[in-house]
Amino acid sequence: MPQEIHTHALANGLTLLAERMPHVRSAAFHILVPAGAAHDPAGKHGLAGLLCDLMTRGAGTRDSRQLSDALDNLGVDRGESTGTLNVQLSGATLARNLLPTLAIYADILLRPHLPEGELDAAKSLSLQDLQSIEDEPQRKVMIELRKRYYPDPLGRDQRGTAEGVMAATIDDVRSHHRTLFHPRDVILAVAGDVDWPALKGEVERLFVDWKPQARPPLAVARPEPKSGHIDKDLDQTQIALAFPSVPIGDPDFYHARGAVGVLSQDMSSRLFTNVREKHGLCYSVYASYETFRDRAAIVGYAGARPELAQETLDRTLEEFRTLVNGIEPDELDRVRVGLKSALIMRQESTSARASAIASDWYFLNRIRPLEEIQAAIDGLTVRGVLDYLRRHPAKGVTVVTLGPGALQVSQK
Amino acid sequence: MPQEIHTHALANGLTLLAERMPHVRSAAFHILVPAGAAHDPAGKHGLAGLLCDLMTRGAGTRDSRQLSDALDNLGVDRGESTGTLNVQLSGATLARNLLPTLAIYADILLRPHLPEGELDAAKSLSLQDLQSIEDEPQRKVMIELRKRYYPDPLGRDQRGTAEGVMAATIDDVRSHHRTLFHPRDVILAVAGDVDWPALKGEVERLFVDWKPQARPPLAVARPEPKSGHIDKDLDQTQIALAFPSVPIGDPDFYHARGAVGVLSQDMSSRLFTNVREKHGLCYSVYASYETFRDRAAIVGYAGARPELAQETLDRTLEEFRTLVNGIEPDELDRVRVGLKSALIMRQESTSARASAIASDWYFLNRIRPLEEIQAAIDGLTVRGVLDYLRRHPAKGVTVVTLGPGALQVSQK
Repeated sequence: MPQEIHTHALANGLTLLAERMPHVRSAAFHILVPAGAAHDPAGKHGLAGLLCDLMTRGAGTRDSRQLSDALDNLGVDRGESTGTLNVQLSGATLARNLLPTLAIYADILLRPHLPEGELDAAKSLSLQDLQSIEDEPQRKVMIELRKRYYPDPLGRDQRGTAEGVMAATIDDVRSHHRTLFHPRDVILAVAGDVDWPALKGEVERLFVDWKPQARPPLAVARPEPKSGHIDKDLDQTQIALAFPSVPIGDPDFYHARGAVGVLSQDMSSRLFTNVREKHGLCYSVYASYETFRDRAAIVGYAGARPELAQETLDRTLEEFRTLVNGIEPDELDRVRVGLKSALIMRQESTSARASAIASDWYFLNRIRPLEEIQAAIDGLTVRGVLDYLRRHPAKGVTVVTLGPGALQVSQK
Repeated sequence: MPQEIHTHALANGLTLLAERMPHVRSAAFHILVPAGAAHDPAGKHGLAGLLCDLMTRGAGTRDSRQLSDALDNLGVDRGESTGTLNVQLSGATLARNLLPTLAIYADILLRPHLPEGELDAAKSLSLQDLQSIEDEPQRKVMIELRKRYYPDPLGRDQRGTAEGVMAATIDDVRSHHRTLFHPRDVILAVAGDVDWPALKGEVERLFVDWKPQARPPLAVARPEPKSGHIDKDLDQTQIALAFPSVPIGDPDFYHARGAVGVLSQDMSSRLFTNVREKHGLCYSVYASYETFRDRAAIVGYAGARPELAQETLDRTLEEFRTLVNGIEPDELDRVRVGLKSALIMRQESTSARASAIASDWYFLNRIRPLEEIQAAIDGLTVRGVLDYLRRHPAKGVTVVTLGPGALQVSQK
């Protein structure tokens, strides 16, 4: 199947992307608005999340109830989330319901009511979400890692703080919407059984009146990553770590993915076999790659019984550090096969495709053709990955632990 | 797209099912073996999980390492899980790799090494999985609910018990495999770009030597559901509840799904709007339907701050109980749209289809055509759902709570 990709830039700065998948009956959409938690003003951390919640509580001619009824009447399986840099609104439904669905999302983006009467309920939910993290140590340790590893505001918890949520007024929410919800750099990506001329015409019609305006720039602090321990009476010690990698646009990007793959792609990867299976040290251990536009990190996680936690941390760090000493051609072969297999399987899901083309546009300002990604994966070599690791070694690793008792971090 | 479904019964009792999805390049498989945790012998609860872990640590001519390498070389995205009644082995890969993948799974099912040298590592992982539940209160309360609601062994935690895991020997694991891993009633379902004659021939070849043998019958105790509270110092009180419904083969099955849909299908459903949104009582609240072949339940969950927990429980129970008093046609319309939309979207995923046809065969001994399910959803009426609710009211609800301080359960 050759890919059929369309792009269209509206005069106001919004970009419409579409991938036509002719053999499906559904269509998925993925909207990115650069209005994530990093933009929350001082003292009001949590405002982005409140705004994101309130935007779907009435918009255009519909009140809160009518809005969710209308979307449910179109069979939309939807979700909204506040990220560090972007707010994401996404969903999937039958292809024939896509255009009426997008019309509702135009109301949500441009004409939300942001009703004062629902602010308390939204705040209560935000506070409970914040509090629930206390009962989810695995999530908590990753949040605490990001706070300590990335410079502010990139390391912020998207949920904000209890103080910030409580301090926010309805005027704050409304002014946050006015300040940040502009069409410039907004990405609206669609994948599935789409009729491009009809889609393009309708999106033009729906969004043509959205006035462009500059967003306030984001000031990012100087990075000062620091390790730390949070003492808590838990049955498992939670371990999180991070060190720098290269962002997605970097020539070394696929090498970084290859390195993470050797460590943690599947059940024959090093962390799983050496830390989990061979020694039975911990139930869960993984590495992953995460990227901003201008910086990226390899992060790791392990959760272990307190009496095994030190050994788990030592062995996990050892796996990260010794990777540069050598990789077997077989290991990289498996990473290549796995990456390509996952790529093709994701290609069959409308939601995955809508999200992928939005992400490509956000990071690269273009959509990578499937063949390009496949060729880059095929081109991975042991030498290339090792060279990357020499340039970006697992040194000065930031380690954050959560549990009963601190651990020793050997900084070789 | 008309569905193209094939079934083939092997002489030894294994059933092969396939759905051909011609526009995809992947293929997914889903294997059900009736060897779940309910079959664990007294004193050895956890044996099914240990066996499931050890089966993939070497089989046929491959040792543990070679086996996971071989699967990763085929790009198989796989998972094994131990359920109450069935062990499930599933995966997805490129369609051209399907037959070699199934050849490896024939080794795993028929000729696992079950190496003694890896038992300790498997036990350690099982114990850590059991222990990690203590740090995951939402999972824990649902496990505790099932223990109290369903009769033994149906309410068992699939992970078993620490005592059972520690007591298990390699001979126990091997004898458990001999006792339970037989082809009778095993379901091997495949969906994707499959070549049916080739698949059928290869599965015949791979499994023809698997000797049929009777499985020991399962004795299920008399149901005696009982509510309870588990005191634990948590930031959220976890609430779980259950009451009887009808199993999937029952003429009332779609009415039961309709009732659960009105309560909890999407963001305009009653639990979400009335308990979460309107009052901001709790971040997470839902109802779901779960079924065995001969019995089923509607279960509910809510997690709330301790000071809001009593009101959350009261309002949640009230929503379950007052549903029988009336349903708006609009509400049921949305449930119908949502169910049909989800049905068609799941139809586009090879993994979802492999799992769905295996499940249909397990519960119904046939595969429901898409049109049949659509017609049943279209045929849902308010009157039909209310009649079902009158016959199966939310009475004598079993409530299990976990957190700081017990709650009052009003049994109206």
